Amino acid sequence: MHNINLFIPNSFLAETNDLKIKTYKVGIISRALAVFRIKNVIIYKDNSFNDENGIKDAKFIETVLNYMNTPQYLRKRAFPIQSDLRHVGILPPLRTPHHPTDNSPQKGDYRQGFTVKRNNKGTFVDIGMDKLAFCKEQLSVNKIFSFKVTKIAKEIIVTPDEPDDIYWGYKTINKNDGLKKSLNKFDPNLVVITTRYAETINSIFDELRYKINKSNNIAIVVGGPYSSVENDYSDFKWESIEINTIPEQGTQTVRTEEAVVATLSLFNILLTD
Amino acid sequence: MHNINLFIPNSFLAETNDLKIKTYKVGIISRALAVFRIKNVIIYKDNSFNDENGIKDAKFIETVLNYMNTPQYLRKRAFPIQSDLRHVGILPPLRTPHHPTDNSPQKGDYRQGFTVKRNNKGTFVDIGMDKLAFCKEQLSVNKIFSFKVTKIAKEIIVTPDEPDDIYWGYKTINKNDGLKKSLNKFDPNLVVITTRYAETINSIFDELRYKINKSNNIAIVVGGPYSSVENDYSDFKWESIEINTIPEQGTQTVRTEEAVVATLSLFNILLTD
Repeated sequence: MHNINLFIPNSFLAETNDLKIKTYKVGIISRALAVFRIKNVIIYKDNSFNDENGIKDAKFIETVLNYMNTPQYLRKRAFPIQSDLRHVGILPPLRTPHHPTDNSPQKGDYRQGFTVKRNNKGTFVDIGMDKLAFCKEQLSVNKIFSFKVTKIAKEIIVTPDEPDDIYWGYKTINKNDGLKKSLNKFDPNLVVITTRYAETINSIFDELRYKINKSNNIAIVVGGPYSSVENDYSDFKWESIEINTIPEQGTQTVRTEEAVVATLSLFNILLTD
Repeated sequence: MHNINLFIPNSFLAETNDLKIKTYKVGIISRALAVFRIKNVIIYKDNSFNDENGIKDAKFIETVLNYMNTPQYLRKRAFPIQSDLRHVGILPPLRTPHHPTDNSPQKGDYRQGFTVKRNNKGTFVDIGMDKLAFCKEQLSVNKIFSFKVTKIAKEIIVTPDEPDDIYWGYKTINKNDGLKKSLNKFDPNLVVITTRYAETINSIFDELRYKINKSNNIAIVVGGPYSSVENDYSDFKWESIEINTIPEQGTQTVRTEEAVVATLSLFNILLTD
């Protein structure tokens, strides 16, 4: 099992001022993460982007990504009304296993739950059923965790747990760090930098397949409209490889969300049998 | 040089009622066509989709695709104000060679032009300069053609011509035909049907590479939310191959525009060196 972590710049919404379109663009990223089963998405600070806007946009990207990764039945609890979420009605659902649409889980099912309140015996958890489930551990309240349903009777009992054989959503990380500092926390085996100025992916296809198959923690970095990636990683301490994932692109520029889908599609076939 | 023709269903906007988002979704397709240098895009009739909505949506898709493929300097002339184009302000530019941003072409340059009026000596053409150019052929008026600038003096002379070594945009075809009838007009060497129920692209990567490299006219078919492709092509007279271009997809469904970018990305690396 390979962990793929996608690094996107906080600048990638800068091309539009329309909040509905900004929302939809983040939705495209979220869908791509789920379609291609990406573990973590890291929003890094593009040094060429205005700091103030960068912090604001990063927060917006983080909020919408978290919203989309949250199952429908927990969204009202987890996200109070806020202006960043004004246009979430246009976002497509993920339709992943961690977003079940029925409200009657069976014993043994996994569910995301929202910790509503706690007493000295444990924590009451909303797992999208008519009544709250109970977890015999004292968890932080007002947070989302994953649970396994261990008993369904008069009481519904859950324990913190997550399946390891099916895709269970992504985690969004936003620390307003530059690319290098963001990478540091992941300490990847391999950093893949996508840039149109590198060799094309097909010219190094076999080399790349070999490299990624021996790496279990891979960072894929895409650039933004200001494209500062190239200057940033000259002294990386990780094994890194630059590739052009869109040989002979017909347009002068490729947008971040386009590069994400195009690149993850290629890595998907490199990583599956 | 391989001609890739992309077949998309008229139903692919059915998931949303928001005209701005419908517009943006067509924009994603248009950008993908240009990024991956696709020759023709054919809107086929999804038989499972409501006929009336299908005709309306197909017309909308056609209009927005044509609008995006038209250089900025001709859009006002070529597209009278209409409700389908209410939200074109949010569309990204293609930034292709056939959309030059300067207004001073040189002799030998290619330009798209709009035929404004005609006399018995030829046709006046708007190629985005301060004054109209003249073409010594009698062309239909109020249409867009490609020209080569052959003389720049007191008069600017152009002749109908198109470069064959650079990507020069796509052509949109919308005849409200079903998939089979739409394919008939292209008579492709190879029809590629994308469906999650087929073998994965990586399991037949070399076979596929061989097949597409001996085909100069390839049809790539993507489905829509009603996904009627599978039932449609059992008695195709063309060589055809079914593939799953998104092995182990993490979501229950993949949207048409996602499938388009993911699939064209893979074909791009199969077709470039």
